[in-house]
Amino acid sequence: MTTASSAQMPPQSARQRVLDVALALFTRHGYAGTSLQMIADEMGVTKGSLYYHFRAREDLLRALVGPLIEQLRAIVEHAEAQRSPSVRAEHVLTGYARLAAANRALVAVTSGDPSVVEVIHADPDWADLIDRQIGLLAAVQPGLAGRVRATIVMAGIAATAAPGVVEADEAELCRQLIDAGRRTLGLRAPRA
Amino acid sequence: MTTASSAQMPPQSARQRVLDVALALFTRHGYAGTSLQMIADEMGVTKGSLYYHFRAREDLLRALVGPLIEQLRAIVEHAEAQRSPSVRAEHVLTGYARLAAANRALVAVTSGDPSVVEVIHADPDWADLIDRQIGLLAAVQPGLAGRVRATIVMAGIAATAAPGVVEADEAELCRQLIDAGRRTLGLRAPRA
Repeated sequence: MTTASSAQMPPQSARQRVLDVALALFTRHGYAGTSLQMIADEMGVTKGSLYYHFRAREDLLRALVGPLIEQLRAIVEHAEAQRSPSVRAEHVLTGYARLAAANRALVAVTSGDPSVVEVIHADPDWADLIDRQIGLLAAVQPGLAGRVRATIVMAGIAATAAPGVVEADEAELCRQLIDAGRRTLGLRAPRA
Repeated sequence: MTTASSAQMPPQSARQRVLDVALALFTRHGYAGTSLQMIADEMGVTKGSLYYHFRAREDLLRALVGPLIEQLRAIVEHAEAQRSPSVRAEHVLTGYARLAAANRALVAVTSGDPSVVEVIHADPDWADLIDRQIGLLAAVQPGLAGRVRATIVMAGIAATAAPGVVEADEAELCRQLIDAGRRTLGLRAPRA
Protein backbone atom coordinates (compact mmCIF):
# COMPACT_ATOMS: atom_id res chain seq x y z
CA MET A 1 0.00 0.00 0.00
CA THR A 2 2.79 2.35 0.96
CA THR A 3 4.77 1.82 -2.20
CA ALA A 4 1.61 1.98 -4.28
CA SER A 5 0.59 5.36 -2.84
CA SER A 6 4.10 6.78 -3.36
CA ALA A 7 4.12 5.43 -6.90
CA GLN A 8 0.80 7.12 -7.66
CA MET A 9 2.02 10.53 -6.53
CA PRO A 10 4.16 12.57 -8.92
CA PRO A 11 7.71 12.20 -7.54
CA GLN A 12 8.04 15.94 -6.87
CA SER A 13 4.99 16.12 -4.60
CA ALA A 14 5.95 12.93 -2.80
CA ARG A 15 9.39 14.47 -2.16
CA GLN A 16 7.82 17.74 -1.02
CA ARG A 17 5.51 15.86 1.33
CA VAL A 18 8.50 14.18 2.97
CA LEU A 19 10.09 17.62 3.42
CA ASP A 20 6.91 19.10 4.91
CA VAL A 21 6.48 16.26 7.39
CA ALA A 22 10.18 16.35 8.29
CA LEU A 23 10.04 20.10 8.99
CA ALA A 24 6.97 19.64 11.22
CA LEU A 25 8.75 16.92 13.21
CA PHE A 26 12.04 18.87 13.40
CA THR A 27 10.04 21.80 14.79
CA ARG A 28 8.39 19.65 17.43
CA HIS A 29 11.23 17.32 18.49
CA GLY A 30 14.36 18.92 17.09
CA TYR A 31 16.41 17.57 14.19
CA ALA A 32 18.47 15.36 16.52
CA GLY A 33 15.28 14.02 18.07
CA THR A 34 13.67 13.05 14.74
CA SER A 35 14.56 9.77 13.03
CA LEU A 36 13.75 8.72 9.46
CA GLN A 37 11.57 6.07 11.13
CA MET A 38 9.50 8.79 12.86
CA ILE A 39 9.04 10.59 9.54
CA ALA A 40 7.96 7.35 7.85
CA ASP A 41 5.53 6.57 10.71
CA GLU A 42 4.03 10.08 10.57
CA MET A 43 3.50 9.67 6.80
CA GLY A 44 2.20 6.11 7.15
CA VAL A 45 4.88 4.78 4.79
CA THR A 46 7.80 2.42 5.28
CA LYS A 47 11.27 3.75 6.00
CA GLY A 48 12.40 2.02 2.81
CA SER A 49 10.14 4.21 0.71
CA LEU A 50 11.80 7.35 2.16
CA TYR A 51 15.18 6.14 0.88
CA TYR A 52 13.86 6.63 -2.64
CA HIS A 53 13.99 10.39 -1.95
CA PHE A 54 16.62 10.80 0.77
CA ARG A 55 19.37 8.39 1.70
CA ALA A 56 20.10 9.93 5.08
CA ARG A 57 18.48 12.36 7.47
CA GLU A 58 21.16 14.94 6.69
CA ASP A 59 20.28 14.87 2.96
CA LEU A 60 16.76 15.74 4.00
CA LEU A 61 17.94 18.62 6.19
CA ARG A 62 20.14 19.94 3.39
CA ALA A 63 17.23 19.77 0.94
CA LEU A 64 15.20 21.90 3.36
CA VAL A 65 17.91 24.39 4.32
CA GLY A 66 19.67 24.71 0.93
CA PRO A 67 17.02 26.84 -0.84
CA LEU A 68 16.75 29.13 2.21
CA ILE A 69 20.52 29.60 2.24
CA GLU A 70 20.45 30.55 -1.45
CA GLN A 71 17.83 33.23 -0.73
CA LEU A 72 19.98 34.46 2.14
CA ARG A 73 23.00 34.57 -0.20
CA ALA A 74 21.11 36.85 -2.59
CA ILE A 75 20.19 39.15 0.32
CA VAL A 76 23.75 39.30 1.65
CA GLU A 77 25.31 39.89 -1.78
CA HIS A 78 22.80 42.63 -2.57
CA ALA A 79 23.52 44.24 0.82
CA GLU A 80 27.30 44.05 0.33
CA ALA A 81 26.93 46.06 -2.88
CA GLN A 82 25.42 49.04 -0.98
CA ARG A 83 27.33 52.22 -0.19
CA SER A 84 27.29 52.62 3.62
CA PRO A 85 27.22 50.42 6.74
CA SER A 86 23.71 51.52 7.68
CA VAL A 87 22.27 50.98 4.19
CA ARG A 88 23.95 47.57 4.11
CA ALA A 89 22.51 46.67 7.54
CA GLU A 90 19.07 47.95 6.51
CA HIS A 91 19.15 45.62 3.46
CA VAL A 92 20.12 42.60 5.55
CA LEU A 93 17.51 43.41 8.20
CA THR A 94 14.60 43.82 5.81
CA GLY A 95 15.65 40.87 3.66
CA TYR A 96 16.06 38.54 6.64
CA ALA A 97 12.79 39.68 8.24
CA ARG A 98 10.94 38.95 4.97
CA LEU A 99 12.64 35.55 4.69
CA ALA A 100 11.72 34.69 8.29
CA ALA A 101 8.10 35.86 7.97
CA ALA A 102 7.70 33.79 4.78
CA ASN A 103 9.45 30.65 6.13
CA ARG A 104 8.54 30.69 9.81
CA ALA A 105 9.12 27.04 10.75
CA LEU A 106 12.23 26.62 8.65
CA VAL A 107 13.99 29.78 9.87
CA ALA A 108 13.20 28.86 13.49
CA VAL A 109 14.76 25.42 13.00
CA THR A 110 17.89 26.75 11.29
CA SER A 111 18.49 29.32 13.98
CA GLY A 112 17.36 27.71 17.23
CA ASP A 113 18.00 23.99 16.94
CA PRO A 114 21.58 23.20 18.09
CA SER A 115 21.76 20.01 15.99
CA VAL A 116 20.82 22.02 12.87
CA VAL A 117 23.19 24.87 13.72
CA GLU A 118 25.92 22.20 13.99
CA VAL A 119 25.22 20.95 10.44
CA ILE A 120 25.09 24.49 9.02
CA HIS A 121 28.35 25.54 10.65
CA ALA A 122 30.07 22.36 9.47
CA ASP A 123 29.55 23.55 5.88
CA PRO A 124 32.27 26.18 5.25
CA ASP A 125 30.23 27.94 2.54
CA TRP A 126 27.10 28.17 4.74
CA ALA A 127 29.10 29.19 7.83
CA ASP A 128 30.83 31.94 5.83
CA LEU A 129 27.50 33.31 4.59
CA ILE A 130 26.09 33.55 8.11
CA ASP A 131 29.28 35.25 9.31
CA ARG A 132 28.85 37.84 6.56
CA GLN A 133 25.21 38.36 7.51
CA ILE A 134 26.12 38.97 11.18
CA GLY A 135 29.06 41.16 10.13
CA LEU A 136 26.84 43.43 8.01
CA LEU A 137 24.42 43.96 10.91
CA ALA A 138 27.22 44.40 13.46
CA ALA A 139 29.07 47.03 11.38
CA VAL A 140 26.51 49.73 12.27
CA GLN A 141 28.22 50.09 15.65
CA PRO A 142 31.90 49.24 16.20
CA GLY A 143 33.02 46.75 18.81
CA LEU A 144 31.15 44.48 21.14
CA ALA A 145 27.96 46.58 21.19
CA GLY A 146 27.46 46.09 17.44
CA ARG A 147 28.11 42.36 17.73
CA VAL A 148 25.64 41.96 20.59
CA ARG A 149 22.93 43.97 18.84
CA ALA A 150 23.41 42.03 15.58
CA THR A 151 23.16 38.68 17.35
CA ILE A 152 20.04 39.75 19.25
CA VAL A 153 18.40 40.87 16.01
CA MET A 154 19.24 37.70 14.06
CA ALA A 155 18.33 35.22 16.79
CA GLY A 156 15.38 37.33 17.88
CA ILE A 157 13.87 37.51 14.40
CA ALA A 158 14.12 33.75 13.93
CA ALA A 159 12.65 32.99 17.36
CA THR A 160 9.81 35.49 17.01
CA ALA A 161 8.86 34.20 13.56
CA ALA A 162 8.70 30.61 14.87
CA PRO A 163 5.24 29.06 14.45
CA GLY A 164 2.89 29.71 17.38
CA VAL A 165 4.98 32.43 19.02
CA VAL A 166 3.11 35.58 17.94
CA GLU A 167 -0.20 35.79 16.13
CA ALA A 168 0.21 37.97 13.06
CA ASP A 169 -0.08 37.59 9.32
CA GLU A 170 3.09 37.55 7.24
CA ALA A 171 3.05 41.23 6.24
CA GLU A 172 2.32 42.52 9.75
CA LEU A 173 4.89 40.22 11.36
CA CYS A 174 7.48 41.35 8.82
CA ARG A 175 6.76 45.05 9.53
CA GLN A 176 7.09 44.54 13.28
CA LEU A 177 10.30 42.53 12.98
CA ILE A 178 11.85 45.27 10.85
CA ASP A 179 10.70 48.00 13.25
CA ALA A 180 12.10 46.15 16.30
CA GLY A 181 15.33 45.34 14.44
CA ARG A 182 15.87 48.99 13.52
CA ARG A 183 15.38 50.03 17.16
CA THR A 184 17.90 47.47 18.37
CA LEU A 185 20.50 48.32 15.73
CA GLY A 186 19.91 52.08 15.89
CA LEU A 187 18.86 52.40 12.23
CA ARG A 188 16.50 55.11 11.05
CA ALA A 189 13.69 54.05 8.70
CA PRO A 190 14.73 55.08 5.16
CA ARG A 191 12.73 57.94 3.63
CA ALA A 192 9.87 56.55 1.51
CA MET B 1 37.09 0.89 37.84
CA THR B 2 34.08 3.00 37.00
CA THR B 3 32.13 2.08 40.10
CA ALA B 4 35.24 2.43 42.24
CA SER B 5 35.97 5.99 41.01
CA SER B 6 32.34 7.04 41.53
CA ALA B 7 32.43 5.54 45.01
CA GLN B 8 35.58 7.52 45.88
CA MET B 9 34.04 10.84 44.86
CA PRO B 10 31.72 12.59 47.30
CA PRO B 11 28.22 11.94 45.89
CA GLN B 12 27.54 15.67 45.41
CA SER B 13 30.57 16.27 43.17
CA ALA B 14 29.91 13.08 41.20
CA ARG B 15 26.36 14.30 40.61
CA GLN B 16 27.61 17.77 39.65
CA ARG B 17 30.09 16.22 37.22
CA VAL B 18 27.26 14.34 35.49
CA LEU B 19 25.34 17.63 35.19
CA ASP B 20 28.38 19.49 33.79
CA VAL B 21 29.08 16.81 31.17
CA ALA B 22 25.38 16.59 30.26
CA LEU B 23 25.17 20.36 29.74
CA ALA B 24 28.25 20.32 27.51
CA LEU B 25 26.75 17.52 25.38
CA PHE B 26 23.28 19.15 25.27
CA THR B 27 24.98 22.33 24.04
CA ARG B 28 26.83 20.46 21.30
CA HIS B 29 24.23 17.92 20.13
CA GLY B 30 20.95 19.16 21.58
CA TYR B 31 19.06 17.45 24.41
CA ALA B 32 17.21 15.18 21.97
CA GLY B 33 20.54 14.23 20.38
CA THR B 34 22.22 13.27 23.66
CA SER B 35 21.66 9.85 25.21
CA LEU B 36 22.58 8.72 28.73
CA GLN B 37 24.99 6.36 26.95
CA MET B 38 26.78 9.35 25.36
CA ILE B 39 27.07 11.04 28.77
CA ALA B 40 28.46 7.84 30.30
CA ASP B 41 30.95 7.44 27.41
CA GLU B 42 32.10 11.06 27.73
CA MET B 43 32.68 10.54 31.48
CA GLY B 44 34.33 7.15 30.99
CA VAL B 45 31.79 5.43 33.26
CA THR B 46 29.09 2.83 32.64
CA LYS B 47 25.52 3.84 31.95
CA GLY B 48 24.57 1.87 35.06
CA SER B 49 26.61 4.17 37.27
CA LEU B 50 24.64 7.20 35.96
CA TYR B 51 21.39 5.61 37.17
CA TYR B 52 22.67 6.07 40.72
CA HIS B 53 22.17 9.83 40.20
CA PHE B 54 19.51 10.09 37.49
CA ARG B 55 17.01 7.46 36.45
CA ALA B 56 16.11 9.10 33.15
CA ARG B 57 17.49 11.78 30.87
CA GLU B 58 14.60 14.06 31.76
CA ASP B 59 15.47 13.89 35.50
CA LEU B 60 18.90 15.15 34.50
CA LEU B 61 17.44 18.00 32.43
CA ARG B 62 15.12 18.97 35.28
CA ALA B 63 18.03 18.97 37.73
CA LEU B 64 19.85 21.41 35.41
CA VAL B 65 16.91 23.65 34.57
CA GLY B 66 15.14 23.64 37.96
CA PRO B 67 17.58 25.94 39.85
CA LEU B 68 17.62 28.38 36.91
CA ILE B 69 13.81 28.48 36.89
CA GLU B 70 13.81 29.27 40.62
CA GLN B 71 16.15 32.20 40.02
CA LEU B 72 13.88 33.37 37.21
CA ARG B 73 10.88 33.06 39.54
CA ALA B 74 12.53 35.41 42.05
CA ILE B 75 13.22 37.92 39.24
CA VAL B 76 9.65 37.77 37.90
CA GLU B 77 8.06 38.06 41.36
CA HIS B 78 10.28 41.00 42.29
CA ALA B 79 9.40 42.67 38.98
CA GLU B 80 5.65 42.09 39.42
CA ALA B 81 5.82 43.99 42.73
CA GLN B 82 7.04 47.17 40.97
CA ARG B 83 4.82 50.17 40.32
CA SER B 84 4.82 50.74 36.52
CA PRO B 85 5.09 48.71 33.32
CA SER B 86 8.47 50.18 32.42
CA VAL B 87 9.97 49.64 35.88
CA ARG B 88 8.64 46.06 35.83
CA ALA B 89 10.15 45.48 32.37
CA GLU B 90 13.46 47.04 33.47
CA HIS B 91 13.62 44.59 36.40
CA VAL B 92 12.94 41.58 34.17
CA LEU B 93 15.44 42.77 31.57
CA THR B 94 18.31 43.37 33.99
CA GLY B 95 17.55 40.22 36.00
CA TYR B 96 17.38 38.01 32.91
CA ALA B 97 20.51 39.53 31.37
CA ARG B 98 22.42 38.83 34.62
CA LEU B 99 21.07 35.28 34.73
CA ALA B 100 22.08 34.68 31.10
CA ALA B 101 25.56 36.19 31.48
CA ALA B 102 26.17 34.02 34.57
CA ASN B 103 24.74 30.79 33.07
CA ARG B 104 25.62 31.08 29.41
CA ALA B 105 25.40 27.44 28.29
CA LEU B 106 22.35 26.62 30.37
CA VAL B 107 20.30 29.64 29.30
CA ALA B 108 21.16 28.97 25.64
CA VAL B 109 19.94 25.38 25.96
CA THR B 110 16.70 26.32 27.73
CA SER B 111 15.84 28.93 25.15
CA GLY B 112 17.11 27.59 21.83
CA ASP B 113 16.83 23.81 21.96
CA PRO B 114 13.36 22.73 20.76
CA SER B 115 13.50 19.46 22.70
CA VAL B 116 14.25 21.40 25.92
CA VAL B 117 11.60 24.03 25.20
CA GLU B 118 9.14 21.13 24.79
CA VAL B 119 9.96 19.79 28.29
CA ILE B 120 9.75 23.26 29.86
CA HIS B 121 6.39 24.05 28.28
CA ALA B 122 5.00 20.65 29.31
CA ASP B 123 5.42 21.75 32.94
CA PRO B 124 2.45 24.05 33.69
CA ASP B 125 4.32 25.88 36.48
CA TRP B 126 7.40 26.53 34.30
CA ALA B 127 5.33 27.49 31.27
CA ASP B 128 3.34 29.95 33.39
CA LEU B 129 6.51 31.59 34.70
CA ILE B 130 7.88 32.13 31.19
CA ASP B 131 4.54 33.56 30.06
CA ARG B 132 4.71 36.04 32.92
CA GLN B 133 8.29 36.97 32.00
CA ILE B 134 7.31 37.65 28.38
CA GLY B 135 4.18 39.47 29.53
CA LEU B 136 6.16 41.85 31.74
CA LEU B 137 8.52 42.76 28.87
CA ALA B 138 5.67 43.02 26.34
CA ALA B 139 3.58 45.35 28.54
CA VAL B 140 5.86 48.34 27.77
CA GLN B 141 4.11 48.69 24.41
CA PRO B 142 0.53 47.52 23.81
CA GLY B 143 -0.35 45.04 21.09
CA LEU B 144 1.75 43.08 18.66
CA ALA B 145 4.71 45.48 18.73
CA GLY B 146 5.25 44.88 22.44
CA ARG B 147 4.97 41.12 21.99
CA VAL B 148 7.47 41.10 19.12
CA ARG B 149 9.99 43.28 20.98
CA ALA B 150 9.69 41.16 24.13
CA THR B 151 10.27 37.93 22.21
CA ILE B 152 13.26 39.38 20.37
CA VAL B 153 14.79 40.51 23.66
CA MET B 154 14.28 37.20 25.46
CA ALA B 155 15.42 34.94 22.62
CA GLY B 156 18.15 37.38 21.63
CA ILE B 157 19.65 37.55 25.13
CA ALA B 158 19.76 33.76 25.42
CA ALA B 159 21.29 33.31 21.96
CA THR B 160 23.87 36.07 22.44
CA ALA B 161 24.94 34.73 25.82
CA ALA B 162 25.47 31.23 24.35
CA PRO B 163 29.06 30.02 24.70
CA GLY B 164 31.33 31.03 21.83
CA VAL B 165 28.98 33.61 20.31
CA VAL B 166 30.54 36.87 21.53
CA GLU B 167 33.81 37.32 23.36
CA ALA B 168 33.20 39.30 26.51
CA ASP B 169 33.52 38.77 30.24
CA GLU B 170 30.39 38.32 32.30
CA ALA B 171 30.06 41.95 33.47
CA GLU B 172 30.65 43.46 30.03
CA LEU B 173 28.31 40.99 28.31
CA CYS B 174 25.62 41.74 30.88
CA ARG B 175 25.98 45.52 30.35
CA GLN B 176 25.70 45.15 26.57
CA LEU B 177 22.69 42.82 26.78
CA ILE B 178 20.89 45.31 29.02
CA ASP B 179 21.76 48.23 26.75
CA ALA B 180 20.54 46.41 23.62
CA GLY B 181 17.41 45.19 25.42
CA ARG B 182 16.52 48.74 26.52
CA ARG B 183 16.90 49.97 22.95
CA THR B 184 14.63 47.22 21.60
CA LEU B 185 11.96 47.69 24.27
CA GLY B 186 12.19 51.49 24.29
CA LEU B 187 13.19 51.76 27.95
CA ARG B 188 15.28 54.64 29.26
CA ALA B 189 18.19 53.76 31.56
CA PRO B 190 17.08 54.53 35.12
CA ARG B 191 18.80 57.50 36.80
CA ALA B 192 21.74 56.32 38.87
